Amino acid sequence: MNCLLVEPSELQAGNRLLVEDRRAEHIVRVLASRVGDTLRAGMVGGAMGTARIVELSAERLRPRVVLELDLGEEPPPRPGIDLVLALPRQIMLRRILFQAATMGVDRIFLINAARVEKSFFKASILAPEMIREQFLLGLEQGRDTVLPELSVHPRFRAFVEDQLPGLAAGIDCRLVAHPGTEHDLAGVTCGRSGRLLLAVGPEGGWVEFEIERFREQGFAPFHMGPRILRVDTAVVALLGQCGLVRQLQRAAG
Amino acid sequence: MNCLLVEPSELQAGNRLLVEDRRAEHIVRVLASRVGDTLRAGMVGGAMGTARIVELSAERLRPRVVLELDLGEEPPPRPGIDLVLALPRQIMLRRILFQAATMGVDRIFLINAARVEKSFFKASILAPEMIREQFLLGLEQGRDTVLPELSVHPRFRAFVEDQLPGLAAGIDCRLVAHPGTEHDLAGVTCGRSGRLLLAVGPEGGWVEFEIERFREQGFAPFHMGPRILRVDTAVVALLGQCGLVRQLQRAAG
Repeated sequence: MNCLLVEPSELQAGNRLLVEDRRAEHIVRVLASRVGDTLRAGMVGGAMGTARIVELSAERLRPRVVLELDLGEEPPPRPGIDLVLALPRQIMLRRILFQAATMGVDRIFLINAARVEKSFFKASILAPEMIREQFLLGLEQGRDTVLPELSVHPRFRAFVEDQLPGLAAGIDCRLVAHPGTEHDLAGVTCGRSGRLLLAVGPEGGWVEFEIERFREQGFAPFHMGPRILRVDTAVVALLGQCGLVRQLQRAAG
Repeated sequence: MNCLLVEPSELQAGNRLLVEDRRAEHIVRVLASRVGDTLRAGMVGGAMGTARIVELSAERLRPRVVLELDLGEEPPPRPGIDLVLALPRQIMLRRILFQAATMGVDRIFLINAARVEKSFFKASILAPEMIREQFLLGLEQGRDTVLPELSVHPRFRAFVEDQLPGLAAGIDCRLVAHPGTEHDLAGVTCGRSGRLLLAVGPEGGWVEFEIERFREQGFAPFHMGPRILRVDTAVVALLGQCGLVRQLQRAAG
């Protein structure tokens, strides 16, 4: 926990709040903090700063910590990346949600595809509170307060043809990862509007019909080489690469 | 398992072998393969190709599969990246070993640093057979046969000053990830010898003394932005970025 996150509803008078959950456990057991210590903190969806420990009781089974917030800093700048992701299996999705929040992805569209197993749409991780939990853990790791927006789209064609044009309006750097296609990322030309939209397929890849629909929406296909990456590895490696693409665009003016 | 890996010692007459371990389990229970089916296969450290199932008994508790290999293909090209990594905690290291093998890292140097906990050097994952297991699983995922080379260096200064100059000879693209430094990866100039050496620090980062030693060895420090990534996330994102740097170098001739 590199940043203690607080919900606006938890705040009491004088910018104080009481925590008794895993955050209190972490403060007492892992950080071994004391009264007077300050921690990095942030308001979910809002400003960042510090939290000073004003009361702390560690004796009981369930530690209690009273904190006083001093928030006035902006959360970190965002890389400007949205992710279209063919819904992966639960264990992969959990890791990806955490890591995408840490890395500052703005929007995540979980979509169906020919090679997505239908059962994945019934996964318990898709419950809003489960998604939010992974996002909060990821933000605590990355020192950010801004939750990604997430939506689930069980119909591929309806999403790509009907919704994506509006959702992606103004984003002229659109990339779709696709094994076996002609170019790698270095060989793709990509608009410089300042935002980037990345589509990552299921295990086994997109089918040709799907790639054609993405092409129609202005997506440039690229491959990651002959190696088959697990989807959580692929997403993190690609977010790293897309972040670098954006850095290079900015450096080039 | 995208590629069935075979040890040279397992081979019997006529390019046949018997498997009865988790590979047989996978063939029978996950792939539901039958006699006559072929799978992607490779010899550890050697060629790739296919394995044809010539006998299969699935009835018993422990399935047995006899395979006939037909290997003659080169393993995939390698990105040309070596990794110097401050020894992370066990759970992170396990994930990193798997993913580094999948992504085709050539050499991994696990080293000490001021912010590495000494107990990490006693982790069971550092047993050669445990390391090899993660590498093999990673190669099976990535469809490769070439194990990374791994060495452990419990003394930072002895490694960086005495061993690194020889180990890194001829590699003129040397990068060290370091939070808070001046440039991001887009702002770093990096030699084009064709190989890349990446150093990644512990949780909490390198200390200044360590960064100075890396600078003396020709490493360019760069930062990944203000977000704090978990080390397994950071390594995969950085391997993705370094892979793209190499692609861009090749594209530029």
